[in-house]
Amino acid sequence: MTYDTFFADAIDALRKERRYRTFAEIERDASHFPRAVWHSPGGPRDIVVWCSNDYLGMGSHPDVVAAMCDAAKARGAGAGGTRNISGNSHEIVMLERELADLHGKESGLVFTSGYISNATGISTIVKLIPDCVVISDELNHNSMIEGVRHGGRQKAIFRHNDLDHLEELLKAAGDRPKLVVFESVYSMDGDIAPIGAICDLAERYGAMTYLDEVHAVGMYGERGGGVAERDGVMHRVDVIEGTLGKAFGVVGGYITGKRLVIDAVRSYAPGFIFTTALPPAVAAAATASVRHLKNSQAERTGQRTQVAKVKAALAAAGLPQMETPTHIVPVMVGDAKACKMASDLLLAEYGIYIQPINYPTVPRGTERLRITPTPFHDDALIAHLATALSDVWERLELPYADRVTQHTASRSTAAGAAPIPLPMAGG
Amino acid sequence: MTYDTFFADAIDALRKERRYRTFAEIERDASHFPRAVWHSPGGPRDIVVWCSNDYLGMGSHPDVVAAMCDAAKARGAGAGGTRNISGNSHEIVMLERELADLHGKESGLVFTSGYISNATGISTIVKLIPDCVVISDELNHNSMIEGVRHGGRQKAIFRHNDLDHLEELLKAAGDRPKLVVFESVYSMDGDIAPIGAICDLAERYGAMTYLDEVHAVGMYGERGGGVAERDGVMHRVDVIEGTLGKAFGVVGGYITGKRLVIDAVRSYAPGFIFTTALPPAVAAAATASVRHLKNSQAERTGQRTQVAKVKAALAAAGLPQMETPTHIVPVMVGDAKACKMASDLLLAEYGIYIQPINYPTVPRGTERLRITPTPFHDDALIAHLATALSDVWERLELPYADRVTQHTASRSTAAGAAPIPLPMAGG
Repeated sequence: MTYDTFFADAIDALRKERRYRTFAEIERDASHFPRAVWHSPGGPRDIVVWCSNDYLGMGSHPDVVAAMCDAAKARGAGAGGTRNISGNSHEIVMLERELADLHGKESGLVFTSGYISNATGISTIVKLIPDCVVISDELNHNSMIEGVRHGGRQKAIFRHNDLDHLEELLKAAGDRPKLVVFESVYSMDGDIAPIGAICDLAERYGAMTYLDEVHAVGMYGERGGGVAERDGVMHRVDVIEGTLGKAFGVVGGYITGKRLVIDAVRSYAPGFIFTTALPPAVAAAATASVRHLKNSQAERTGQRTQVAKVKAALAAAGLPQMETPTHIVPVMVGDAKACKMASDLLLAEYGIYIQPINYPTVPRGTERLRITPTPFHDDALIAHLATALSDVWERLELPYADRVTQHTASRSTAAGAAPIPLPMAGG
Repeated sequence: MTYDTFFADAIDALRKERRYRTFAEIERDASHFPRAVWHSPGGPRDIVVWCSNDYLGMGSHPDVVAAMCDAAKARGAGAGGTRNISGNSHEIVMLERELADLHGKESGLVFTSGYISNATGISTIVKLIPDCVVISDELNHNSMIEGVRHGGRQKAIFRHNDLDHLEELLKAAGDRPKLVVFESVYSMDGDIAPIGAICDLAERYGAMTYLDEVHAVGMYGERGGGVAERDGVMHRVDVIEGTLGKAFGVVGGYITGKRLVIDAVRSYAPGFIFTTALPPAVAAAATASVRHLKNSQAERTGQRTQVAKVKAALAAAGLPQMETPTHIVPVMVGDAKACKMASDLLLAEYGIYIQPINYPTVPRGTERLRITPTPFHDDALIAHLATALSDVWERLELPYADRVTQHTASRSTAAGAAPIPLPMAGG
């Protein structure tokens, strides 16, 4: 039997739908963030990265880099084992304390990624709650969908940020245990969940809450605890999940919550137990970043200022940005091919790197460029971005601002859900 | 509703079965590997780690540490995004080439961990093969079990390393596509699969093969390509999976294989697509380690020598080690409480850290101490180990060598398989 055809067919399917992806190979320049070198087909090229999730440039912060190097020199490059078998470094224990403190919780637990923290965290929690119904926002990230699915419990999906629908589902679940699973900042639309109102409902109907703050930690709240901190409702959420790989600039994920809950996940979650721990160097770098952002407002203030300037510059140019209350600036294109062409042109001719976001990360017809300004995208870079985008819009005859209001629910929840997998473009 | 009781009950269940785990908090000393400081209840204590999966001490190798620090300084502490969205660093691309070359394959693909490379790699491969039957060794690691389960295909489990049973299952699957999933070195028993003979059967019955070499890469074969390289059968295995977190001393996992297969997994695997890439610093450190071990025999030779000395010393003391053809030296205790007591005594009174391995990582009655000598466990440390173990065996009246032969299939495959999860002690 030749198996090659199965894999060739799968790839051909993507190519035919113009969804086959090639990754841009880059070398970030820590001394000149957000600048990087792109290994283009024609050789190395200087570019500016406008689509990074290193939202505050903390990956290049001297304290963070120094913490990583110091720990690597002192402890070595790896952890040497699972948490249980010699991999429980002092640095990772310190990081978990720092994270518990960040969210005002009793305990924290670090995973190798935000993805695995959701996938194994949610599935383990719901497996430990007999007869649990999982009530999940329809736009939750793939990692949360995987967690819900692998938990094997009955699930109910509520319309994105729709409190009435959520209440309906909570009522319908009756006296059974319930876990409400949602995000604070939804990454592709840049909108925000009404966390307090969701907690009101959860309390009224006796549900437990699990909140993903991966696109908010470091950036919102007085100490970077996320939108729940900003809204003064952090103490009302049972489990807060976050990442060390976006605003904190390193890699890894975590959950925080009551000691009992965290200890149970620690003791039962296969994706935590059976995997090598994050290196002490990674844990030390993440701790330095979390600590810095607990005490410094400069990065958050700087980001807000530059985000506002980007939004203003794009508005002045008549570009079709989606209005968001967050740091995420989606500019609508509405066509997969055109979105890819715009991105290619920006990179090749303007040295501006903005990855196109196509189906099924977003629904067909809502393809977009997703821009994430950091405090280090200065006014000159912003002016250059606005000019370049205007040029590209004109050259490719892309639609202008009048069609922006069409977006509503924009992320496909189908990704990965089918028994025979749907090709996924996201991530 | 109070949810606390669910979690409290889960933890109580572990405590009652003496399977509740506390992690030893340690600071490894890269300048004096395998020495470390243990944060004991009574304060910091100098210890020697005898249970690390940093099998060759490469985590402390100057080239590896320097590569990590250099990349962190030049590129920052993180990747800044998923592979598709700005996280595709030059360093990770180089690492994938290095790994493909290591295993003589066309392509490599790096994941955040070995765990996720199995879980999302296996599940994606079998989803892409219509009507596939997965034929899996009964002692496969939890990450492979998760991959098989999430693939959602029919599965058949063959008795550990049993070629007759494997052939029976291959025959029974008839003309359907088949994937044989197995490991080279089984970590808890330290035994080795007959890779060539498994490939013979796979070829005869038209099956594809997926081999986990996580406990073998770096240590076996002329260039550290694993047992398949040593046995001259690397080219006959379709997909070889490995880790960067054990003998290579860093963190992360990977698969290698034909370009088509790897490209399909790259394009379809949710656990690859929707997660932040490993930092350039981690990729650079791993590349340095893989390169070093391709060219240097010193670590492998040193390890073999010291492993032989440990085995000889334990045999001379009459201690009940399981005979293995590998670097893994299990010493049988046969009782959960006694195993934990032995481990506690070794740590507290002799400064020797060997984590106890209890049910369900191994079946009840086969609880053991799992010793992993490195090239850096010198003769004095080995003599100290043998004396300490002899003392502990006498003090706790543990069984001697006559009962060692009892072990057969020793790892529970039930871990994580039940709909309501079994408490798992492994990892």
